[in-house]
Amino acid sequence: MSIPIDQHERLSQCIEFLNKNDKQLNTLFYSQASLAKLEKGQPICHEGNSCSQLAIVLNGTARVYKLGENGKEITLYRVGQGESCILTASCILSEIPFPAFAVCDTNIEAAIIPSHVVQSWLAESSVWRDYIFGLVATRLSNIIQVVEDVVFRRMDRRIAGYLYNQASKGNAAISTTHQVIASELGTSREVVSRILKEFEHEDLIKVTRGTIQLIDLDTLRTKQHVS
Amino acid sequence: MSIPIDQHERLSQCIEFLNKNDKQLNTLFYSQASLAKLEKGQPICHEGNSCSQLAIVLNGTARVYKLGENGKEITLYRVGQGESCILTASCILSEIPFPAFAVCDTNIEAAIIPSHVVQSWLAESSVWRDYIFGLVATRLSNIIQVVEDVVFRRMDRRIAGYLYNQASKGNAAISTTHQVIASELGTSREVVSRILKEFEHEDLIKVTRGTIQLIDLDTLRTKQHVS
Repeated sequence: MSIPIDQHERLSQCIEFLNKNDKQLNTLFYSQASLAKLEKGQPICHEGNSCSQLAIVLNGTARVYKLGENGKEITLYRVGQGESCILTASCILSEIPFPAFAVCDTNIEAAIIPSHVVQSWLAESSVWRDYIFGLVATRLSNIIQVVEDVVFRRMDRRIAGYLYNQASKGNAAISTTHQVIASELGTSREVVSRILKEFEHEDLIKVTRGTIQLIDLDTLRTKQHVS
Repeated sequence: MSIPIDQHERLSQCIEFLNKNDKQLNTLFYSQASLAKLEKGQPICHEGNSCSQLAIVLNGTARVYKLGENGKEITLYRVGQGESCILTASCILSEIPFPAFAVCDTNIEAAIIPSHVVQSWLAESSVWRDYIFGLVATRLSNIIQVVEDVVFRRMDRRIAGYLYNQASKGNAAISTTHQVIASELGTSREVVSRILKEFEHEDLIKVTRGTIQLIDLDTLRTKQHVS
């Protein structure tokens, strides 16, 4: 298990902590980590699994979500380039089962770190500790934001925000289904369909089979914040 | 700032990591921590504050909650004996503002640790690292449980669960208001009143001014789990 030397330069562009001049950590990382490829749609971790390795994403994104008994889903957060899953780290460090599901949103390339070194690097490297606590802070605030959204924001505001965020990634037309939006936001397909129909009547969007065209971005942006 | 020697025995009964025979950590703890008393109802931290110290509760409980623009509240978790607030630790370690509110549920006595040593002990003590990561794991799962409850469970089930949990603490009659239950669960007082009225019609509880008597605990227990 190690990272081939011709990959070191590329990895240091994806993973910020490799640029902190912690030579001991870099040596440990390149000798003990390995590379892996995962395919879009591939399950990464199931609820109740124990975690034997920590993945740091080089490219692509993974989605971490909860699944309810009634089949409803809600996204807790996404893991992108240079990031890792704090729930996995937490399971490794506290030896508890994984409390959610993780799946590949896209094809993913990742650096894989065996669980026993995740712990030992914490003792040896302040750069690694900072990385792990950076994850803790980011993910805690991601999940608290989900609580805040679910408890305090009306669903029409949340869907407006979801559409606006997609648009701000440069998509004027979003290829998605009502079910995907429902699973993202923790509601039912019926509720999404009803609200999208309202938005269509207001000329904010145009819904065609498998695609939502965003017509009035300014109003969608405003709408997401009104309480 | 230090803990008087006549208090060491008592603290070691409240704080588990002081019994792990990590002499270096114990010495650091007793010399750098101090004792503090806080009164019931006293605010501990406001959203947006920076945290300058970490408190480990010796007795009493604190409530950590989010407050929405519309005045609604929801409890994220409680901090009890031997526990500490991972959001505070995370703010200290990642230098981010506190993302919630914390208040004393009861009178609290706590050991207070200055922020700069929270970080340095991580480098020096595996017992301290385990304590902090134990907090991370517990609180992540507390907050994910809140997401799960809010998204997947009907409010009548959640209120049944809340009442049953109070009863399992030995209270056959709960002194509380509809507003307190609403703030606990992230809903409005009106919704709580409507559901309590339903429970009263079903002879599960009896509501009098400021008190809810629990009459049929078996049915409340069953009701909390039905989806």
